[in-house]
Amino acid sequence: MSSNYTFSHKHLLGLADYTKADIEHVLEQAIHFREILDRPVPKIPTLRDKTIVNLFYENSTRTRISFELAQRRMGADVVNFAASNSSAKKGESLRDTIQNIESMKIDMVVVRHQSPGVPHYLTRCVDAHIINAGDGAHEHPTQALLDMFTMKQQLGKISGLKVAIIGDIGNSRVVRSNIIGLKKMGAEITLCGPKTMMPLFVKDLGVNVSYNLDETLGWADVVMALRIQLERMEHSLFPSLREYHEQFGIKQEHLEKYPDFLIMHPGPINRGVEMEGDVADSDRAIILDQVTNGVAVRMAVLYLVSGGLRV
Amino acid sequence: MSSNYTFSHKHLLGLADYTKADIEHVLEQAIHFREILDRPVPKIPTLRDKTIVNLFYENSTRTRISFELAQRRMGADVVNFAASNSSAKKGESLRDTIQNIESMKIDMVVVRHQSPGVPHYLTRCVDAHIINAGDGAHEHPTQALLDMFTMKQQLGKISGLKVAIIGDIGNSRVVRSNIIGLKKMGAEITLCGPKTMMPLFVKDLGVNVSYNLDETLGWADVVMALRIQLERMEHSLFPSLREYHEQFGIKQEHLEKYPDFLIMHPGPINRGVEMEGDVADSDRAIILDQVTNGVAVRMAVLYLVSGGLRV
Amino acid sequence: MSSNYTFSHKHLLGLADYTKADIEHVLEQAIHFREILDRPVPKIPTLRDKTIVNLFYENSTRTRISFELAQRRMGADVVNFAASNSSAKKGESLRDTIQNIESMKIDMVVVRHQSPGVPHYLTRCVDAHIINAGDGAHEHPTQALLDMFTMKQQLGKISGLKVAIIGDIGNSRVVRSNIIGLKKMGAEITLCGPKTMMPLFVKDLGVNVSYNLDETLGWADVVMALRIQLERMEHSLFPSLREYHEQFGIKQEHLEKYPDFLIMHPGPINRGVEMEGDVADSDRAIILDQVTNGVAVRMAVLYLVSGGLRV
Repeated sequence: MSSNYTFSHKHLLGLADYTKADIEHVLEQAIHFREILDRPVPKIPTLRDKTIVNLFYENSTRTRISFELAQRRMGADVVNFAASNSSAKKGESLRDTIQNIESMKIDMVVVRHQSPGVPHYLTRCVDAHIINAGDGAHEHPTQALLDMFTMKQQLGKISGLKVAIIGDIGNSRVVRSNIIGLKKMGAEITLCGPKTMMPLFVKDLGVNVSYNLDETLGWADVVMALRIQLERMEHSLFPSLREYHEQFGIKQEHLEKYPDFLIMHPGPINRGVEMEGDVADSDRAIILDQVTNGVAVRMAVLYLVSGGLRV
Repeated sequence: MSSNYTFSHKHLLGLADYTKADIEHVLEQAIHFREILDRPVPKIPTLRDKTIVNLFYENSTRTRISFELAQRRMGADVVNFAASNSSAKKGESLRDTIQNIESMKIDMVVVRHQSPGVPHYLTRCVDAHIINAGDGAHEHPTQALLDMFTMKQQLGKISGLKVAIIGDIGNSRVVRSNIIGLKKMGAEITLCGPKTMMPLFVKDLGVNVSYNLDETLGWADVVMALRIQLERMEHSLFPSLREYHEQFGIKQEHLEKYPDFLIMHPGPINRGVEMEGDVADSDRAIILDQVTNGVAVRMAVLYLVSGGLRV
Repeated sequence: MSSNYTFSHKHLLGLADYTKADIEHVLEQAIHFREILDRPVPKIPTLRDKTIVNLFYENSTRTRISFELAQRRMGADVVNFAASNSSAKKGESLRDTIQNIESMKIDMVVVRHQSPGVPHYLTRCVDAHIINAGDGAHEHPTQALLDMFTMKQQLGKISGLKVAIIGDIGNSRVVRSNIIGLKKMGAEITLCGPKTMMPLFVKDLGVNVSYNLDETLGWADVVMALRIQLERMEHSLFPSLREYHEQFGIKQEHLEKYPDFLIMHPGPINRGVEMEGDVADSDRAIILDQVTNGVAVRMAVLYLVSGGLRV
């Protein structure tokens, strides 16, 4: 990275707004925070004077706890705001909610919302730093950053890497952020899944598309299996979970037949659907590394976006 | 204030128990805490050794977060206790619940409950400091204190101020606390709203009553619009939200016609009901100041009632 | 206790795994923590560098707050994880959930679960310290420890004490842990309740069984009344609450007739069922002592099991 690079983002709304140099900078910072997590006392008081609100309009224990631990380990004051208990139910507008929160002197808002664009909209309403923890089917940038960090940690590079993404491509914000980020970083991508789960204009994405799992596994360095939303079965995107597993589930036999690819998953796994239980537990799976790295990457993001705040 | 005044309250149950000098003392202390909130590091370790339980039997994200931020910024240990997850459901008496909580060595309890008188009752059960965060249709003293603080900050005084309160007067603890406090402080009050929303013995309250919005807005220095509880529509207190807005909603045309009054609202606002969206966003509205001041006023209250505790 | 005793447990799964010397050691340590709770500043930074997750698959405000206060007063970082908002609903396996949590660098997990054996199972999945906060009808070891601590504090000993346990014996994890612990400590136990509420093989437990409340109260030094689960009425274990109270409720007249026994209850009490309200409020009841001691005993357990962790 050029020595006169400066990170200048006040928010993390999506990887679409970040350059290759920005992404590289986040991943480099995350190395330091990953080391801190391995220390006996995994704490650093960088955000001691900051108050952060986790504003979750969708349930996500996993992502919320990961952010909350990142925040606490940096010494921030944390307030959790779950929409199910909130004024949202009382008919208050999103803008009024966020302006109210900011009026209580909040420095940062980590937001998850079912509607795409909510984090962008919030930046127009308040001065606080906004971090997107998932907005509809749009982006989930910290997930893609932790995925890329994990690939780099495991395989030494991202550029030139062959990354396969398997499953319900069309409805996944994880995929969207990963495609944007991985392409900027120079990886090659193959999307694989049933036709009903592919986005409409998949050919315009600048990625490979395959409907053949074996072919894809034989090609890939890293395979990212997406969670099948059981509740989407009703929409008949595929006939049954068993049939999905038959055609697109990763099995022990694949590990033997194709000895190279590593296995990732954003969690939570449906064992026996996206992959056999033994596959999830094999040493080819780096799923728990993703979880640990998630805390480190989120620490790096919180640190960087708040950078200029009170200095 | 006389130099030999001493604040001697162990609780804040309602403004009925506080003298004019007490209210003035809280508002004066709040000035200091308001300044602290504007500092780069808005913290002060005054309550570092205290444990506070927020005991909320009614949902109120706004009030709960305001108290929680006040507590954390003063260094207190905070435990949140939402009744929906609690022993209340298991048939435990309120007294047993509070005595149990106190037995765990709690210093203060901030309580919200649907029944009037609960905070008073709790003081007879335990030694902890009790702060009323709203009890039925009875009192909501910290709301009235933050309202008065905001008036004084904006207009330099409370005594002699003309304060109009618009809306569902009869069922509002916010109104009750404000009438009690504002009268002690020497303000003049006009209540305005549909007849169905007036309390039965409104003439005994020592305030003006009007059923004419224009007349009221022309008279007032400050107008406090109350939230219309959408769920109360069923009780037919008025024919429709649209009709309410037609008759009692504050509109852009009022701002032009009556250039003096400021606009307050305890939140959350129903835009298009209590006032037009543009009115809420105009510079005549000081609603977000109320929110910021709420944290400062609650810090002052926590500080003062705990004053003698461990000194 | 012998001077070359060393406490060597990494977990607290149940009192079945603890020797008499272990239990004595916990109770001795708890004396120190009980003293700390009585200080003006009831805090000690023993766990300042630890992160603890409270993983509650069953609601229990009382136990959760007691653990949380113990943790905060020892300076730990605390993350609460209530199963109702969690991945459990999304079909994730318990092992995946706990491994994910551990991957975020958690030191200890306090777990409550409706299935017996879950805490044991977790020790096979992760390296973190596991503390059982109640698993099905199996064990609730910290409750039994706080009960024994309270007996010893009040009566100076446990060995030789006559302890009666009244109520729904068959379904109680509190009873199971108490029987195991009290027998190890040398107490004599009588179980008393309706036949429908006795366990099937009660004769093999090495305790006395009585169906006569008066006889039992006349015999006992300490009487522990168990909470009647109102929801179990449907299963017709007894005809009505009134009839239960008639036959097995402790009444004012018993206090006069049998002047010796003290009264305990794990809470929350159903006044008028397990005992008359006046009995719960009498000076023979040491129920609130149990609550205070609960925090101290849990501090001792957290301290001891984490003992070797980072030293």
